Amino acid sequence: MMNFCSVCGEKVSLIMPAGDNRMRFVCSQCETIHYQNPKVVTGCIPQWQDKILLCKRAIEPRYGLWTLPAGFMENGESNREGAARETFEEANAKLTNMTLFSVFSIAHISQIYTMYRADLVAGEASPGIESLEVALMAEEDIPWGNLAFKVIEENLKLYYQDKTAGTFSVHYGELIKQQDESFKVKYF
Amino acid sequence: MMNFCSVCGEKVSLIMPAGDNRMRFVCSQCETIHYQNPKVVTGCIPQWQDKILLCKRAIEPRYGLWTLPAGFMENGESNREGAARETFEEANAKLTNMTLFSVFSIAHISQIYTMYRADLVAGEASPGIESLEVALMAEEDIPWGNLAFKVIEENLKLYYQDKTAGTFSVHYGELIKQQDESFKVKYF
Repeated sequence: MMNFCSVCGEKVSLIMPAGDNRMRFVCSQCETIHYQNPKVVTGCIPQWQDKILLCKRAIEPRYGLWTLPAGFMENGESNREGAARETFEEANAKLTNMTLFSVFSIAHISQIYTMYRADLVAGEASPGIESLEVALMAEEDIPWGNLAFKVIEENLKLYYQDKTAGTFSVHYGELIKQQDESFKVKYF
Repeated sequence: MMNFCSVCGEKVSLIMPAGDNRMRFVCSQCETIHYQNPKVVTGCIPQWQDKILLCKRAIEPRYGLWTLPAGFMENGESNREGAARETFEEANAKLTNMTLFSVFSIAHISQIYTMYRADLVAGEASPGIESLEVALMAEEDIPWGNLAFKVIEENLKLYYQDKTAGTFSVHYGELIKQQDESFKVKYF
């Protein structure tokens, strides 16, 4: 929600600017149009031997549930660098051989997720400030009932499908929230 | 640049919030932290028979140069829907069989580009308000010297490389601006 112009401090109005087809917050004083756009979450599936690295969240939302290292991309970094940074912040883990694994759209919260596969350097990781614990898990250890986010569950499913098939590809999926709060997942 | 809090209208300060490692615009009155994040540009390579659809820009930047249909992703839409919307807005063109083709990071302008391959429905297109003209072009017609953006040139190069190889894959690249203003392109 936007009430005031971040450039000049005047109140903004929600109007459709000339030549546009959407409502925007516009400043009547300095005429700045304040566009609001989706945010990118970027993260990683860190691999070590036959295991992957998961983190138990020490922050809300979903405190205490398991996730892959991921977070909001920052200005001035590449998408891949953001995934590496988040992995270092959440799990003190360094990565090599990073390769794009998936892009997910979650339209109802205006987010896209980009996830990379990567090798965990020396198999070393420990909890960062946002993690209660970190663990290298084999497929049979994945806590499917205690994952933090649907998009993480989908990435893990795709990962093990590809691994079983013996070949990894890059996936694009959309998570669509249903009226009963469950998600429909579509791949394109 | 941000001068005023968009929530309460007070002046903001550029400080490093507790527990953070970056400078953020923070409101001293309502304590809102105003995160600023990269924007997503989403677009398409529309295919029809042996040709693809390009648009000649009727807007700045790069007025009069050729591009693929693409634009800023909007809140509430999926990444793929955004690419289809931009293609309709810029070229009155409908798409089918959309599949992810590339993700590019352009860190120095805090953008990521997502591009889809798709089939142009009925081969029909005409200039939208942001295009001077549109054209279905064979490879030998591509105006390599008059393309609007480096990221578009790279997508077209990858497209024809894949087409020649007989198999399309999903690419991730980074465009890094050099001191002499040229770009270095790295693929991962």
